[in-house]
Amino acid sequence: MRESDLLAHVYTIAAGADAAAAGVLVGPGDDCAVVRAPGGDELLLTVDQVVEGRHFEPGTPVDLIARKAVARSISDLAAMGGVPAWGLAAGVLPEKYEHGRDLCDALHRWGMHWRCPIVGGDIASGPGPLTMTVTVVGRMDGVKPVPRSGSLPGDELWLTGQVGGSFESGWHLRFEPRLEAGRAAARSGLVHAMIDLSDGLGRDAGRIGAASGVRLVIDAAKIPVSHRCRDWRQAVREGEDYELLMCVAAGDVRSGRPPFDAQPPLIGPIGLVRACREREAPGATIVDAYGREHDAGEMGWDHGG
Amino acid sequence: MRESDLLAHVYTIAAGADAAAAGVLVGPGDDCAVVRAPGGDELLLTVDQVVEGRHFEPGTPVDLIARKAVARSISDLAAMGGVPAWGLAAGVLPEKYEHGRDLCDALHRWGMHWRCPIVGGDIASGPGPLTMTVTVVGRMDGVKPVPRSGSLPGDELWLTGQVGGSFESGWHLRFEPRLEAGRAAARSGLVHAMIDLSDGLGRDAGRIGAASGVRLVIDAAKIPVSHRCRDWRQAVREGEDYELLMCVAAGDVRSGRPPFDAQPPLIGPIGLVRACREREAPGATIVDAYGREHDAGEMGWDHGG
Repeated sequence: MRESDLLAHVYTIAAGADAAAAGVLVGPGDDCAVVRAPGGDELLLTVDQVVEGRHFEPGTPVDLIARKAVARSISDLAAMGGVPAWGLAAGVLPEKYEHGRDLCDALHRWGMHWRCPIVGGDIASGPGPLTMTVTVVGRMDGVKPVPRSGSLPGDELWLTGQVGGSFESGWHLRFEPRLEAGRAAARSGLVHAMIDLSDGLGRDAGRIGAASGVRLVIDAAKIPVSHRCRDWRQAVREGEDYELLMCVAAGDVRSGRPPFDAQPPLIGPIGLVRACREREAPGATIVDAYGREHDAGEMGWDHGG
Repeated sequence: MRESDLLAHVYTIAAGADAAAAGVLVGPGDDCAVVRAPGGDELLLTVDQVVEGRHFEPGTPVDLIARKAVARSISDLAAMGGVPAWGLAAGVLPEKYEHGRDLCDALHRWGMHWRCPIVGGDIASGPGPLTMTVTVVGRMDGVKPVPRSGSLPGDELWLTGQVGGSFESGWHLRFEPRLEAGRAAARSGLVHAMIDLSDGLGRDAGRIGAASGVRLVIDAAKIPVSHRCRDWRQAVREGEDYELLMCVAAGDVRSGRPPFDAQPPLIGPIGLVRACREREAPGATIVDAYGREHDAGEMGWDHGG
């Protein structure tokens, strides 16, 4: 069973009425869960892992391992428009690992960097590779979180940055979670759906389409492809871009200008959202220079979400 | 560096003023962190891991792996007097692992069992042993959480059950987190400090002493030792009892009756709390039948908390 299939199964079993009764507004299957605390606060919850040999190479500096472990979860908050609040870190360290202290220091430092103090944790040792799991809790502070599932026909597709080349450039270790742009998106009221690109533009666009019951149609020529990639095909497959893809309500006369101010400025529109045709599954399509349509959902790395 | 030393280091670095500014009421070093959401809710946050070969044997049924992974974090909530709210589960599965679906089903089921729906998660695969990390968020619903650090001289020591024999009996896989007793303790207003026994009565009593700046003095003859243990020495060392140890304000004339009703009924008192003598470190002492004093803090399994 592929990781994405397994996650799909998790989403299904968790979509119970019991969950709704317990203040669960958005369950598994989005970038974060959204829950309502008894006092009314809407909070975001997300967890992500990094495994040596999978998400970082052996020999990666401890500081960058900690950075990536924290940043991946922070990026999930950004993709809902949230504000970091608190983090928890759990690690399985190889036996006789000598850098535990440096790793803890670095986790603490990166938590504070994103105003997300690491308030608890757990450490175990094991025979396997170094594994770090970071949970973060985010606040919405009265702003409505942006799910994956709200995209509507007519929406424009915008990005916070270029895609591809993340491994070659080291961006996958040093990426900047798009907290400001994600928050601006949520505040604007114009963004119907949003996701952070961990598994590639193709696959992640497909996820928005599937969650929203629509078809995202991306114009290949408009994708901001990294100069490190041969072509758009490579760029949409590689993953770990950690840029945000937004489905934005179409403006009346926008002349290609970004729909709202954000830091970094939005790039696009790179495509549009349309209703599914008869017997067409929800998802995403990339249209190449010859007008040929490619199913985007199958382009990407099966990273599990 | 031992895990407990590493955790002590984490506690130190996290005890910053920045953390306090961000609504952190209790940081690392207790059973749970306590944070205050903007709307005023006090929430508990904790994370715990189980690693194959360390916390469960290869071949353990998937249902019991999931149960233990969830129950360990639920027990941390119980040790503060909290109520489970939501959980997140992250797993690193061995490559070609065939029971992923069953594991997810079981995590979901056990989450619901303790009214703690699993609202999100992450799955990765890796070359190492099966590892599950469960984060839980708890609510206090207006009741003050019970920390490790509030014990006072004169307090009586009470337990929710017997200690020792957990591995032989299988209790370490099937233990019942003491949510009701923990909640009763918090509601009573009589319990100054509390901890769940994961690393053995000796070591965990020492942790309350250290956190509170006092000395817990346990009468070996009064320890409810499992029939599976040779003697109290074995019982206080083994760990994974997941019973609660409470430091309870001494009553005027209590005649050995439990200080408040709890399910299961409290056992004790098994000892008392006193001020540290001159040049004596805070911690815990076990007094044997000959009146000899044993430092309890060094008796137990270095499980890392």
